Amino acid sequence: MSDSKVIGGKAVIFTQGGPTAVINASWVGVVQGLLMEKNIHEVWGAINGIDGIMGENLVDLRAQSEQTLRDISFTPASQLRSTRKKPTAADNKRILDVFQKHNVRYAFGIGGNDTSESLDIINDHAKSREYELRVFHVAKTIDNDLMENDHTPGYGSAARYVASAFRGVSLDNQCFGGLYIGVCMGRHAGFLTAAAALGKSEPSDGPHLVYLPEIPFSVEKFVQDVEAVYKKHGRCVVAVSEGIEDANHTPILQVLGSDGNLERDSHGNVQLSGTGALADCLVNVAKKHLEEKGVVKKLRARGDTFGYIQRSFPEQSPVDREEALGLGAFAAKCAMSGNIDGSCAIVRVSDEPYKSDFRLVPLKNVAGKTKRMPPEFIAPSGNNVTDAFMAYGKPLIGKLPPVGLLDFSKKVQF
Amino acid sequence: MSDSKVIGGKAVIFTQGGPTAVINASWVGVVQGLLMEKNIHEVWGAINGIDGIMGENLVDLRAQSEQTLRDISFTPASQLRSTRKKPTAADNKRILDVFQKHNVRYAFGIGGNDTSESLDIINDHAKSREYELRVFHVAKTIDNDLMENDHTPGYGSAARYVASAFRGVSLDNQCFGGLYIGVCMGRHAGFLTAAAALGKSEPSDGPHLVYLPEIPFSVEKFVQDVEAVYKKHGRCVVAVSEGIEDANHTPILQVLGSDGNLERDSHGNVQLSGTGALADCLVNVAKKHLEEKGVVKKLRARGDTFGYIQRSFPEQSPVDREEALGLGAFAAKCAMSGNIDGSCAIVRVSDEPYKSDFRLVPLKNVAGKTKRMPPEFIAPSGNNVTDAFMAYGKPLIGKLPPVGLLDFSKKVQF
Repeated sequence: MSDSKVIGGKAVIFTQGGPTAVINASWVGVVQGLLMEKNIHEVWGAINGIDGIMGENLVDLRAQSEQTLRDISFTPASQLRSTRKKPTAADNKRILDVFQKHNVRYAFGIGGNDTSESLDIINDHAKSREYELRVFHVAKTIDNDLMENDHTPGYGSAARYVASAFRGVSLDNQCFGGLYIGVCMGRHAGFLTAAAALGKSEPSDGPHLVYLPEIPFSVEKFVQDVEAVYKKHGRCVVAVSEGIEDANHTPILQVLGSDGNLERDSHGNVQLSGTGALADCLVNVAKKHLEEKGVVKKLRARGDTFGYIQRSFPEQSPVDREEALGLGAFAAKCAMSGNIDGSCAIVRVSDEPYKSDFRLVPLKNVAGKTKRMPPEFIAPSGNNVTDAFMAYGKPLIGKLPPVGLLDFSKKVQF
Repeated sequence: MSDSKVIGGKAVIFTQGGPTAVINASWVGVVQGLLMEKNIHEVWGAINGIDGIMGENLVDLRAQSEQTLRDISFTPASQLRSTRKKPTAADNKRILDVFQKHNVRYAFGIGGNDTSESLDIINDHAKSREYELRVFHVAKTIDNDLMENDHTPGYGSAARYVASAFRGVSLDNQCFGGLYIGVCMGRHAGFLTAAAALGKSEPSDGPHLVYLPEIPFSVEKFVQDVEAVYKKHGRCVVAVSEGIEDANHTPILQVLGSDGNLERDSHGNVQLSGTGALADCLVNVAKKHLEEKGVVKKLRARGDTFGYIQRSFPEQSPVDREEALGLGAFAAKCAMSGNIDGSCAIVRVSDEPYKSDFRLVPLKNVAGKTKRMPPEFIAPSGNNVTDAFMAYGKPLIGKLPPVGLLDFSKKVQF
């Protein structure tokens, strides 16, 4: 990239990895940011990420009606579809060939750290070929695990769903008592599981225990924690990350002897979602403990795995939506400001009133790296979140409806 | 019950069985209906259903603030808690003793067919004791399986959640293709599973297949159905009821050899929720079929069990909320209109514009009986719902937000 002035050419936008409730809003934000730019000759959407580039499966995004783009921006999951493909050297050559053939000078990839890594490699290839290309990564992931970001688009909406769901199941669990375990997405980072606590309206509400992948999980400690909460409240609501591991980094499903035949994707990640096995195993081990110890004769114990609804439920957090649209538009603005490329990230300006801003950081700072929950967000007990996390997370999910609680001081006295 | 005039005394309200998003609205409706009645000396809420009556664990509901009652009416699950206890003869005696001791003359039980049965037995006991008691059952169940009801409070909100969730997961599944199976609640009646179809915005949207407990489930036919849909769309979204059985009434989890240690409640019902085993089994059997038959080399296949969030997610269908409040108030009105008792049910007046009304039916018509999906709601193929079901269900869930779809006619041509 030898030239600092804005170059004329086409733009390609694509989305990758697990979709979110606002990933469409992100790419619509990019399109809106590019609509009026005279140097942008076309805005194409690649279908199924880099597969769509390689296969020249492209849709004209400027030809979509304003109403269509608006409706799409409210729609969960990606209308541009997705892929988890990790490009090979041959793939990268093909991508550059397609870009060069059609004079594509701007590439916007919306995704997580895998996508950032792919974009970084494409960027290096373009440089080695001396093809002037401006590459932008637009942060996206419900896991909230990207470096350089205070938080990522997609997290707020998924966190809102998890907080709402736990609010509901905690009230439900109160009706009968017993144990309820909800398993949340989050392979390496506990942010989404931690969001379960954001739905609490009273200190005694569930989740009473929160297990994050950042803290080595001990089955022995877990059953003791459940026992202590159950003895206190007659019930226990637990939020567990699908990614929990023991001190030797062995997945707990494997520790409990039920790993089955775990799938791996092309980035080498074990497929943890789409199976209810972890919740079932944890329920069984806790039930066995409490019953054998005589804490309760027959424990009512239920486990749910929240699964794909976490990232696709059609209700956006208003803040998340606004930031997704804004970050997309910011990427478009960066593209028009000269010889730059990088990853578009969200920074927090203030907690109260909540205010955020956007910045461009080097692709390499985000590529292939994972941010985890910082120690100040995790209680010293290792089984809950802190007030600092609550202050961090609350502005991101938006207001939840009020909860009405029966006034038990009006108990009838005989 | 020899007297036809309104008698003076106390009222007790209780909630039983699985809670819903509007069960609080139902009992708040009863309280509001009784607030101004001079013949009602007190309005008590029993905590944990009949357990609260027997244990005299009662809360003064007229002493709750207006704001508290309003907030509670929006809150999912029951603030009066619940029980699944089936009363013994000794329990019924104790209940009547408590009623007689405190001059309780009105009992309102909000629940499903088990509760209606319990109330019927209590009613018979009161008659045999010549204790004048007026007993009202107020319909409630997300399963929508009560006789004499067009639909039941609780169903609309749960159906809205299931429809929204399937809308989201179908859009999500479109991003990568493959198989997605979502298991919904519904032991004997398929209404809630059928609601998955209410979220479709296009005919090609998921769920592509809907399996209901009313139709004997064949594993062989299921894998062939999945194969046919997958060959057509490159993907397949399936809604399955947790209650599916084969032609011999053997639960499919048992047919597939993974029944584990199924729990039973005191009404003899097998505990089907709170485990992800059925979804996992169905995913595995379909994956094996498609891969072994060479339809696809490696099928991306995911299963979710919707679990307790279906009945407790804190978002009410507006129609459901209004009807829950209304049916509760109707029960109160009936209580003040003389020597009657019975079950308060919803009837449909018209589909378009949607209009419903309430009526009182004999307890015995509802007690212990189960309504199932009528044949006209089930496609002749046995693996989907009909337009008649869509017309029936749509008014009950309220409007869903619009879905925006990419205009693929604007594909770039080279």
